[in-house]
Amino acid sequence: MQFPKKTMDELLRIDAETYSQQANPNFTVILDHIRSAYNVGSIFRTADCFGIKTIYANGIETPLNHKELQKTALGAEKSVNYQFFPEIKVMYEKLKRDGFAILGIEQTKNSIPLNKIEMPNNTKIAIILGNEVMGICDEWLELVDQCIEIPQKGMKHSYNVSNSFSIVGWHFLRFTF
Amino acid sequence: MQFPKKTMDELLRIDAETYSQQANPNFTVILDHIRSAYNVGSIFRTADCFGIKTIYANGIETPLNHKELQKTALGAEKSVNYQFFPEIKVMYEKLKRDGFAILGIEQTKNSIPLNKIEMPNNTKIAIILGNEVMGICDEWLELVDQCIEIPQKGMKHSYNVSNSFSIVGWHFLRFTF
Repeated sequence: MQFPKKTMDELLRIDAETYSQQANPNFTVILDHIRSAYNVGSIFRTADCFGIKTIYANGIETPLNHKELQKTALGAEKSVNYQFFPEIKVMYEKLKRDGFAILGIEQTKNSIPLNKIEMPNNTKIAIILGNEVMGICDEWLELVDQCIEIPQKGMKHSYNVSNSFSIVGWHFLRFTF
Repeated sequence: MQFPKKTMDELLRIDAETYSQQANPNFTVILDHIRSAYNVGSIFRTADCFGIKTIYANGIETPLNHKELQKTALGAEKSVNYQFFPEIKVMYEKLKRDGFAILGIEQTKNSIPLNKIEMPNNTKIAIILGNEVMGICDEWLELVDQCIEIPQKGMKHSYNVSNSFSIVGWHFLRFTF
């Protein structure tokens, strides 16, 4: 076999405690009114692969024992923290105190294409993913530092929210691997 | 409103005929025994956003009128072509005649991390996504030019297949936008 698959040992999986110690606190994602627990779970799974410390949420709180979340998270809800904020303003103030740039992933008239954005090194980044139908809520759009859109060429003109997270996360985090 | 959302007109959606004329024939994806029609549909949706002309498949043929495929494709099965090959060897020979480099997305002992790969400009690329549980089948692993893996830091050590497609597709296609 020219390309033998890695064994389980070679995959170097880590446990939840090691994860917590090594996790990246400088890149985070805010789930703004994400409706589908499948999407939330899927974002957990990818966040675990990216080594992200915390997922924030507002608008809709998805219980971590939700059956659909667990079906797509595949256990990643045990490594990545989840913090729900009833008040957007409170989350905003916390993230700003912590030094985050807050970037909405949204198709707005003045959004910057993802492939054109340049962030200074060591910028702490929080990205917002909006509701599957409505996008990012007005309250967040009044607060964000910038909007970024993933350019697209197709008939549908919308990426699924969990796939958007994968694309934007990889774009910013690829240098951390 | 500091970041007003784009209107439907401003999204510049195109129809299926225009899509077909503009679509990119030089980057494609091979679905090797992908089991979940939700995943297949989700890959269609992202492929439409990326402007990809054709999705290839082997092992499991998902009918385009499959209810679960349509639920996640959201109509993208009307813009992106789908070609199923009963024989891997026949697909391989066609893609090689057409000048494609064939890259398996798989965690193998000698795979190259996605963020380290460099392809010469204008390389035609076909990526293979393997079965959700088994990964890429042995027959393909004997034929591919190279294996690439998306690096990961977590407890789970596996990206969902449709999210893998989003990450790898964006990585190679981000310069085309």
